Amino acid sequence: MRMYDIIMKKKENEELATEEIKFFVENYTNGTIPDYQASALLMAICFNGMSKKETLDLTLAMRDSGDVLDLSYIDGIKVDKHSTGGVGDKTSLVLTPLVASLGVPVAKMSGRGLGHTGGTIDKLESFPGFTTGISEETFKENIQKIGIAIAGQTANLAPADKKLYALRDVTATVNQVSLIASSIMSKKLASGSDAIVLDVKTGDGAFMKNLEDSNNLAKEMVAIGKLANKHTVAVITDMNQPLGRNVGNIVEVKEAIDTLNGNGPSDFKEVVYELGSQMLIAANKATTKEKAFRLMDEAIENKSALNKFADFVKAQGGDESYVYEPDKFQNAKYTVEVKATQNGYVRNIFAESIGNACMMLGGGRETKDSVIDLTVGIYLNKKVGEYVEKDGILATIYANDMDKAGMAKKVIFDAYELTEQKVLAPNVIKGVID
Amino acid sequence: MRMYDIIMKKKENEELATEEIKFFVENYTNGTIPDYQASALLMAICFNGMSKKETLDLTLAMRDSGDVLDLSYIDGIKVDKHSTGGVGDKTSLVLTPLVASLGVPVAKMSGRGLGHTGGTIDKLESFPGFTTGISEETFKENIQKIGIAIAGQTANLAPADKKLYALRDVTATVNQVSLIASSIMSKKLASGSDAIVLDVKTGDGAFMKNLEDSNNLAKEMVAIGKLANKHTVAVITDMNQPLGRNVGNIVEVKEAIDTLNGNGPSDFKEVVYELGSQMLIAANKATTKEKAFRLMDEAIENKSALNKFADFVKAQGGDESYVYEPDKFQNAKYTVEVKATQNGYVRNIFAESIGNACMMLGGGRETKDSVIDLTVGIYLNKKVGEYVEKDGILATIYANDMDKAGMAKKVIFDAYELTEQKVLAPNVIKGVID
Repeated sequence: MRMYDIIMKKKENEELATEEIKFFVENYTNGTIPDYQASALLMAICFNGMSKKETLDLTLAMRDSGDVLDLSYIDGIKVDKHSTGGVGDKTSLVLTPLVASLGVPVAKMSGRGLGHTGGTIDKLESFPGFTTGISEETFKENIQKIGIAIAGQTANLAPADKKLYALRDVTATVNQVSLIASSIMSKKLASGSDAIVLDVKTGDGAFMKNLEDSNNLAKEMVAIGKLANKHTVAVITDMNQPLGRNVGNIVEVKEAIDTLNGNGPSDFKEVVYELGSQMLIAANKATTKEKAFRLMDEAIENKSALNKFADFVKAQGGDESYVYEPDKFQNAKYTVEVKATQNGYVRNIFAESIGNACMMLGGGRETKDSVIDLTVGIYLNKKVGEYVEKDGILATIYANDMDKAGMAKKVIFDAYELTEQKVLAPNVIKGVID
Repeated sequence: MRMYDIIMKKKENEELATEEIKFFVENYTNGTIPDYQASALLMAICFNGMSKKETLDLTLAMRDSGDVLDLSYIDGIKVDKHSTGGVGDKTSLVLTPLVASLGVPVAKMSGRGLGHTGGTIDKLESFPGFTTGISEETFKENIQKIGIAIAGQTANLAPADKKLYALRDVTATVNQVSLIASSIMSKKLASGSDAIVLDVKTGDGAFMKNLEDSNNLAKEMVAIGKLANKHTVAVITDMNQPLGRNVGNIVEVKEAIDTLNGNGPSDFKEVVYELGSQMLIAANKATTKEKAFRLMDEAIENKSALNKFADFVKAQGGDESYVYEPDKFQNAKYTVEVKATQNGYVRNIFAESIGNACMMLGGGRETKDSVIDLTVGIYLNKKVGEYVEKDGILATIYANDMDKAGMAKKVIFDAYELTEQKVLAPNVIKGVID
């Protein structure tokens, strides 16, 4: 078998055989196939696409390129949740303790964020002492005792995907639906859960900018999951404006705590509940969405979700008192208001711009080695559909550097689009693919 | 400027700017842009093609990546001839002395052949003592004295093309018309001639298998040449069967000498005359094709073309007596006949198979380091349109190894397609693009 022939075959739009895809993934991962042949194949895939069978073959070959975790030591149905990423996306912080408090174990290998805000681990490190550097023993113990454990990605999950993603990133071959789907799913399938719930964001602040592309990606991933015999469902959620009202790290943690106390922003709560109900159904903890919603309402009302969050923070070395007294979190030095220059309804808040503004403030990671400022962030006083008067506050900036705040202010102001016509708040849940 | 953006632009089918193509060629040649980005761009070009402007920009950038020769020290209009390559293509051996004897100077940098038979230099080395390793001084002297000099490619011509071609060769991105055209033309434009006559072969033994592709390639090259202000013309010639009756090295040299003596095969003579007339017209040595044909007839009749060939061989160290006594050339040890197993007209001789058979005999170069056996070859007793009786001879093999002859015999037999219907000899000249 020769890589040249595999490239030529894909270039001529013929379907690659399982063995050919395996040959490519194995030999690319071990360095026998050079980058320049891999990138030629990737570009040909961008033009000719991949069939369902090819996509599954690629996913499984990438899954099998490294460790495939065995979580069978944990009782019950393990459900993994994955988001394609968006601005203000603190969903995992609420969802994890919420479903764990209802008996769905969550065992996660997480990476750090790259982009507008930190990843889940960065946000959790807002709690003094919190660490994901826990031993395998502690990990297993915590799962059994409290139902949640999150470790930094120490296991060697899907190294083929890691290598291919790095190549796609510099050869303009990221944006192909089957490549994206197989990249995500290879890691999910390697992480050992029994069911997978996907949060596919759609809109200008998401990777997929329009609903059609998001739908296609969701369908591809669900198809892969099912062909790999995992219960898989995807929820398509809005990312045409940031989720919730807070964008940053500590501010998002605080908003998550508010939500666990029953005081979260309605759009964020809606996403949490939709995903949560899918997880509870997948784990056989509820038979219908209505029953799942009722269970979650109860877990929030009786504080069992909040307490579970505190238990989890404590179990990984963090100071759990912050969960009950979020005012203990450190604040940024400066508060800067972004004001409207006219009356009007908010028609749009360009989520990507808000993400970039947060990055400018120091709240995101531009390169792998950047150090995140956990205290900075943005509060959206007005969201889409809300009315603001001239000189009313659109958003509030939390900054530690007035120059950066000045730059962010301009970007945030420009991200807001106002109109005289009344505007409805958008639907947050755009669809469910199962 | 970033290579990433250039790849993305081409992927999205936007036209690249002159500066972007220059940036790519310069930085790929000097190693700043890695192979994996170049191959991604090349694959995107295979799908989206290149505009006339982009193709010219690429050609000029590759031309300028190395030396651009200055032939202004030679009087008169310098005409370069290039063939896209075919089986039995000994055209240069006749054309060069023929037009030189009519006052068109030929100053060539030639490479060695890779494939079914040797290149022009390999064939010339059939003359004992012949060398292309001549000094710049001798080169210039010979041009001035006898009008011909051929040197091995010592100058650093279009190194960008060399590097890109090697990459295309291993990434299945060779076969794109604008890439092929710019590759050929970058070297032609760097070689310093005033006019360019192209022999674009078409058919199963050629790089371009069908007339449409050959026409497109010819048009692209002529367009580039004209945009670069060089008189450029392309002749499309048949390669559905080998050119002439001999395929090999010494046997092709002998056939060339026959042709210079007025006894060449008619199809070969036709190609030589068509290209020769285009060269004579480009060099202002004839105003019409008819006049050019008459001049060439004279040069052959009065032996001035043959004598010019002898002078040239001698000037580069070769034993010119072989030109006048070709029987002095060494013969292969064995002669093996390939016979027909039925009566019929030859409908087809798969040129590519004949080329492969010659390679099996040892007459071609499989890798850069292969040593060619100059004595082996194939004589086509029957060509397309000719009648053969059962047990009549289709072809004759000249071999030094009976095992290899046996393999070649099977391939040659299979290359012949016979039919009971009468078949016309094909037109050799398929068209002229100017």
